[in-house]
Amino acid sequence: MKFYYAAGTCALATHIALEEVGADYVAVGIDFSKNQQRSSDFLTLNPKGRVPALVTDKGVLTETPALLFYIAQTHPDADLAPLGDPYQLAALQSFNSYLCSTVHVAHAHKLRGSRWADEVSSFDDMKRKVPETMLSSMMLVEDGMLAGPYVMGEDYSIADMYLFTLARWLEGDGVDVERLPGIIAHRNRMRARPAVKRALAAQGLD
Amino acid sequence: MKFYYAAGTCALATHIALEEVGADYVAVGIDFSKNQQRSSDFLTLNPKGRVPALVTDKGVLTETPALLFYIAQTHPDADLAPLGDPYQLAALQSFNSYLCSTVHVAHAHKLRGSRWADEVSSFDDMKRKVPETMLSSMMLVEDGMLAGPYVMGEDYSIADMYLFTLARWLEGDGVDVERLPGIIAHRNRMRARPAVKRALAAQGLD
Repeated sequence: MKFYYAAGTCALATHIALEEVGADYVAVGIDFSKNQQRSSDFLTLNPKGRVPALVTDKGVLTETPALLFYIAQTHPDADLAPLGDPYQLAALQSFNSYLCSTVHVAHAHKLRGSRWADEVSSFDDMKRKVPETMLSSMMLVEDGMLAGPYVMGEDYSIADMYLFTLARWLEGDGVDVERLPGIIAHRNRMRARPAVKRALAAQGLD
Repeated sequence: MKFYYAAGTCALATHIALEEVGADYVAVGIDFSKNQQRSSDFLTLNPKGRVPALVTDKGVLTETPALLFYIAQTHPDADLAPLGDPYQLAALQSFNSYLCSTVHVAHAHKLRGSRWADEVSSFDDMKRKVPETMLSSMMLVEDGMLAGPYVMGEDYSIADMYLFTLARWLEGDGVDVERLPGIIAHRNRMRARPAVKRALAAQGLD
């Protein structure tokens, strides 16, 4: 498999999953500062012009919740999702859907305001609100969705990789992380995992 | 099961799925015009204050991609997802993730700008851009993701219910639907299905 990522983006979650299962893959970095995600080569591969993208022998897959689920499904021995329990699996999908549709979207308003508006004053307004929206969306995780020690309770899963990836953005987004002790403890727990260290190192991150 | 919806919202997708599988459920309408989604009773059930929410005998599930997947998984005879094919199932999840994180989010900037900004000028700016963002995000569906006649090709699936639900918003969002002939043909195909007609009628919609 060929895995396209940009350092520090949400693609980190998939990178961790690939490392956790010991997948046979090559990682290819896309440089957003050079706008490589809009190059014609990359757009042929992924018309969305986004990362992550995973080239499999059957085709190209995109969207973090789908990639995480694909890796968990194709590596059942790694036990990264409750594949045999429809309710728990839906609960896990619900968690990942919330991260992609609400938490990541809140974060994107800091630097990607031009996706949804045209005026500089609007971009500034959106940027100012990010500490508040990131905190409130993560408070729901802190207070109700993070069972502990992992998202789904005792069982480590693909949801943990995704939460860790977005929780890395909190300080940069101006969030008072003292309000999120459970998420920060989870983040520290994640950082101690060898697969997480390998994925971070591969992307040149701390 | 108890299914909470608001008429015409993304909850319609789940409503259609429940009808397609002949689920044993009660539908409960939440009136957004009366802000019932923020009532303490509803927030106890779903702290996000959003619909859809599905109360099962194991707990409450939220987020459209998760609910659709849960209904497909628990009703395998209805054959609404390629449950035995990890690649196709991931492709379906990718499609639904794109709808929740990109298409629905584009639409939400018309009336829900206060989620991401504070100034009236920003809300107006966001609202003006919705026809463009909805068209461009749906063009990716039109050009590459909608295999036809259904999203996944010949096989009807939960992805079709979700696409239909969001495609109902296009004219209201000011999109020139003549640019989206495949999506409009799909929408008409969906409207002809008895389960879709029942879900629309239950929500008082055309």
